Amino acid sequence: MNNRINHLLNQMKQHQIESALITSKANIYYFSNYLTDPHERLVAIYVDRKGNALLILPKMEEEDAKRAGWSGDLLSYNDDTNPWTLFKKYVEDTKQVPGQMAVEKGDLSLSRGEIIRQSFPDSEITDVSELLNQLRVIKDQKELNLLKQAAQLADFGVKTGIQAIEEGKTEMEIVADIEYALKREGVREMSFSTLVLTGDKTSSPHGNPARNTVQPGDFVLFDLGVVYEGYCSDITRTVAYKHITPKQEEIYNTVLKAEKAAIEACKVGKPVGELDKTARNLIDQAGFGEYFMHRIGHGLGIDVHEYPSMSGNNSLPLEEGMCFTIEPGIYIPEVGGVRIEDDIFMTNKGPEILTSYPKELQIIG
Amino acid sequence: MNNRINHLLNQMKQHQIESALITSKANIYYFSNYLTDPHERLVAIYVDRKGNALLILPKMEEEDAKRAGWSGDLLSYNDDTNPWTLFKKYVEDTKQVPGQMAVEKGDLSLSRGEIIRQSFPDSEITDVSELLNQLRVIKDQKELNLLKQAAQLADFGVKTGIQAIEEGKTEMEIVADIEYALKREGVREMSFSTLVLTGDKTSSPHGNPARNTVQPGDFVLFDLGVVYEGYCSDITRTVAYKHITPKQEEIYNTVLKAEKAAIEACKVGKPVGELDKTARNLIDQAGFGEYFMHRIGHGLGIDVHEYPSMSGNNSLPLEEGMCFTIEPGIYIPEVGGVRIEDDIFMTNKGPEILTSYPKELQIIG
Repeated sequence: MNNRINHLLNQMKQHQIESALITSKANIYYFSNYLTDPHERLVAIYVDRKGNALLILPKMEEEDAKRAGWSGDLLSYNDDTNPWTLFKKYVEDTKQVPGQMAVEKGDLSLSRGEIIRQSFPDSEITDVSELLNQLRVIKDQKELNLLKQAAQLADFGVKTGIQAIEEGKTEMEIVADIEYALKREGVREMSFSTLVLTGDKTSSPHGNPARNTVQPGDFVLFDLGVVYEGYCSDITRTVAYKHITPKQEEIYNTVLKAEKAAIEACKVGKPVGELDKTARNLIDQAGFGEYFMHRIGHGLGIDVHEYPSMSGNNSLPLEEGMCFTIEPGIYIPEVGGVRIEDDIFMTNKGPEILTSYPKELQIIG
Repeated sequence: MNNRINHLLNQMKQHQIESALITSKANIYYFSNYLTDPHERLVAIYVDRKGNALLILPKMEEEDAKRAGWSGDLLSYNDDTNPWTLFKKYVEDTKQVPGQMAVEKGDLSLSRGEIIRQSFPDSEITDVSELLNQLRVIKDQKELNLLKQAAQLADFGVKTGIQAIEEGKTEMEIVADIEYALKREGVREMSFSTLVLTGDKTSSPHGNPARNTVQPGDFVLFDLGVVYEGYCSDITRTVAYKHITPKQEEIYNTVLKAEKAAIEACKVGKPVGELDKTARNLIDQAGFGEYFMHRIGHGLGIDVHEYPSMSGNNSLPLEEGMCFTIEPGIYIPEVGGVRIEDDIFMTNKGPEILTSYPKELQIIG
């Protein structure tokens, strides 16, 4: 079996977990190197402490999974077969129905939970999420390389978008330019729906690009990322078009100062929550506290939002190998919004900033 | 409240459901007209038989939800607040903690299920999924219009892709051309990751486009769709490049015959499973049965795969207003694969085919 499965088995022994059923797309990729999006069809990895490792998946994906390197047991099914019946038989045939089955409680649906309870009425259902989070939160060298590649492509996306700004051009036209350039570079998937927002729409942290056009005096905000061999990036840059008011400039420079301060505060051993507090204090002091209404960032890896949450009340200590975003913002209705975001990899020497597109205020055009 | 919420309340009365907590992205859009992708943050709609209707969402999305037309109660929260605590208080303040709370068991995670059990220990948790499926499966005129628009954009995507075929061009370059053209038309999101597969890769129903190049004698398979104002399309076309073997032509024409026969078989009142059987019998008779290893299609709407499943054992009768795909395929390793897929809207007069790109065999170049 591969190293990650072996590592999982070791951890399961240490935590006295008898068996685990892994069902999230991200964890299936992490443990099998097979990246799939099965929609409503069941794809799962089952491991037990005797060292059995099983991949359950639709028959039509069997060859792809083998090509990706899966060498454990394989149970594939057609659309007219119930995979849970096959799974139950597999577990029974190993002659060791587990006394306990750990599942991803944050991912597994209540429906599937009920099927498991009915199939294995004597097995206690526990949660393996925390253990899997702990495994994935520390990235290895291979993962760091993929995260770096993803970040460089995000830099390229922002650069393309800023070059595409023209008066009267729509947000969606700029999105098209960015994604076209990235697809030509081989990017199959963005890590989330690309945001290009102009003018007053920047004052919503989660607006959607549309047919609005770029106008002089606008902020133009880019928030985008790519998936590179299963690993995500996530960058935000905000620029001004043609001219800027003193108020807008004050907002921009406050966000920039807060972002840099939070990155400088990254230090192994420090609680994660300190980063949010560092940025928030600066923004509060500048009088914009009420307009920074989200946490400073989120973990980054196979999922674009993953463990740990970088919120102010998180006391988890920073460790070497963690990867996360730092992305303070100020959003003022009728004035506009600014967010600046980088991807950070934690080393013993301090933060390594994976995204590198310049972030000093730019006035375009 | 809006019509859909009223309709839901009526149905809840008929089915004696006291309260419902709706959590899937698709159903939240269906009932609120607010389209959001909250990642791990909670977004939910809660309704009870007294007519209370509550939308729970992050504070930074509050304005967007109001703009989308939500006029019921609203409970918004910052990242440092636990939305479940607020929700519990809301329910208690209505002075009617329900004896029963129906949730989407196929969507709600075990973790959230446990929070609900702890918050409302005296409420029985039941499943509202089936009722919601029944509501959504029959599309109204507004939805049909959106599905048509989405289908026309999918036609345009396939046309663009076929025009982009050139010897030596990579699958990903063709994906880039297709999505660029669609983004320029205002498409913000594809309904799934666009597939362009060439040569032997067509023999996997679920391969991923990469740097493979188009070569004479290849099948080139396009499977793509867009999201248009929240509604999905999904089309597949397969063409040959330069020349074709008799075996490839036989496969193509078998799939085409099966696809047309399944569409002709669409008739109100007939069990859904008949469509799969119709196509499968033809493919079996031609000797390719073992190479058609998936169901004939899936329901289509706000989700690209939704209720009903169009599998051979589904006895649900076809009804006016249903929308689904018909997509038989034959996949032979070393030879290649063909799939042809259309989006069908069921009317009392028979099937209306929403996708219209030609499907007779085309040899390009």
